[in-house]
Amino acid sequence: MNAAQKLGFSANSKLLIIHADDAGLSHSENRATMQVLENGFVNSYSIMVPCPWFYEMAQYAKNNPRHDCGIHLTLTCEWENYKFGPVLPISEVPSLVDSNGHFYKKREQLRENASPEHVQKELKAQIDKALQFGLKPTHIDSHMYSVGSDTQFFKIYKELGKEYDLPVLLNKQLMELVGLPPAENIDAEDFIIDKTYVGEFKYFEAGKLSDFYSAVLNDLQSGLNLLLIHPAFDDNEMQGVTVNHPNFGAAWRQIDFDFFTNKENQLILEENNIELITWKDINNRI
Amino acid sequence: MNAAQKLGFSANSKLLIIHADDAGLSHSENRATMQVLENGFVNSYSIMVPCPWFYEMAQYAKNNPRHDCGIHLTLTCEWENYKFGPVLPISEVPSLVDSNGHFYKKREQLRENASPEHVQKELKAQIDKALQFGLKPTHIDSHMYSVGSDTQFFKIYKELGKEYDLPVLLNKQLMELVGLPPAENIDAEDFIIDKTYVGEFKYFEAGKLSDFYSAVLNDLQSGLNLLLIHPAFDDNEMQGVTVNHPNFGAAWRQIDFDFFTNKENQLILEENNIELITWKDINNRI
Repeated sequence: MNAAQKLGFSANSKLLIIHADDAGLSHSENRATMQVLENGFVNSYSIMVPCPWFYEMAQYAKNNPRHDCGIHLTLTCEWENYKFGPVLPISEVPSLVDSNGHFYKKREQLRENASPEHVQKELKAQIDKALQFGLKPTHIDSHMYSVGSDTQFFKIYKELGKEYDLPVLLNKQLMELVGLPPAENIDAEDFIIDKTYVGEFKYFEAGKLSDFYSAVLNDLQSGLNLLLIHPAFDDNEMQGVTVNHPNFGAAWRQIDFDFFTNKENQLILEENNIELITWKDINNRI
Repeated sequence: MNAAQKLGFSANSKLLIIHADDAGLSHSENRATMQVLENGFVNSYSIMVPCPWFYEMAQYAKNNPRHDCGIHLTLTCEWENYKFGPVLPISEVPSLVDSNGHFYKKREQLRENASPEHVQKELKAQIDKALQFGLKPTHIDSHMYSVGSDTQFFKIYKELGKEYDLPVLLNKQLMELVGLPPAENIDAEDFIIDKTYVGEFKYFEAGKLSDFYSAVLNDLQSGLNLLLIHPAFDDNEMQGVTVNHPNFGAAWRQIDFDFFTNKENQLILEENNIELITWKDINNRI
């Protein structure tokens, strides 16, 4: 039984969430996210609570509850010059940060250094801060899927979903991508996204990222699908954020923005009988 | 005896520091600050340690020790959507923040709410964080001159200068601007800048900000003068930071950038026998 059937759809329904990650990261990311939601065909997004532009995006989320909005739980900061760290005082979660008090750049550093206790405290604090700001989150997911860097972190992530009664992004491909064996970390009652799509650097490098997105939409299989994108503008701010990091860099994010605000691309959904679905819909049905 | 004489210059020397405030505030501010130092005729700046782009500017400062670089001690965040707060955990300095954990927008709120103990701890932590990052500050000054909102805060500010052996921006006009009586708050041994210039909203509003800067340079009086500017670009990021706040807003900051990178304006210095001087020079002579 695929996830679409579990939600009460027919087995051959092609369900899709088009999801913007990384809201709150920067003003550029926020502006682009608002525009793809309003003028494009993106129908869900999630916010990074520890980031400098969280407040702006949180205000938007409160004023626009019609849009699905999750919490993009954050334990890593992959950027060279633009740094952020835990919402909790560093003294409470010292194993999550480098010598400057910032999150580690890589999942591997997180796995090697972070204590499960600190991961649990910090992730809970991020959700609590979002709630305190008046957000009504529709789901939780994970920046760089770094919760998948360790079995214990992953368990904490799943438990937080239960504790706050929120659907959690679980997907075998993402787990495999970050090296977490799905068989040992998925329980029978877990609600799993059938298939997740995210751009890869080889497509970006070859100038084929838009082609990849077209192919995802044209070749979408039945079941519950999730397409993760990162819309922002290739402007000075975003070039500063992503300096020396072309993977998910400013130029990549501009392509995401352009593709998902293009009306011609939106037509591909209809041509292929793709139904957009939100995390809110999922939560109402599971 | 004017401050120029105290530094060993003749009484009729026209000394000037052209100082960029607010480095670290944003990527736009950082880029513009680096450019006015390298390609313009700005010769000193100070960094806001609690701000999101502190790290980028701190790296620059470490790699470019030839430029005067102070610490722009920060106790307020005047922006609507772009928020920051103390470097210390909020639980250690609760009187410095609003219900969201951010600095107050106005000096008056700071005066009404902040305890001197918390002001002292936070300002010290900002200096310590800068030192820990490897900065070798040449001076300390104060964002929005908010240390002048209260006699006790001002005393703390002056004491920090002594404790860290750093010159402190003291000036009667700035004190009057923020409502602190100079007579009661200046001691005989304090080293005082003779005259400080900063743009006013009436000039900006009337399109006369550049004229103001020209007049400052053309009419400069003898003694030690300080011109405070806020260079940044009128780009998307800075428009987001300063939204609904045209006073020292993005368009204003672009004018500052343009004026102080214009070679024709630089010639006014020579025409008027103005000598540029840094805080490092001052510290070597007092």
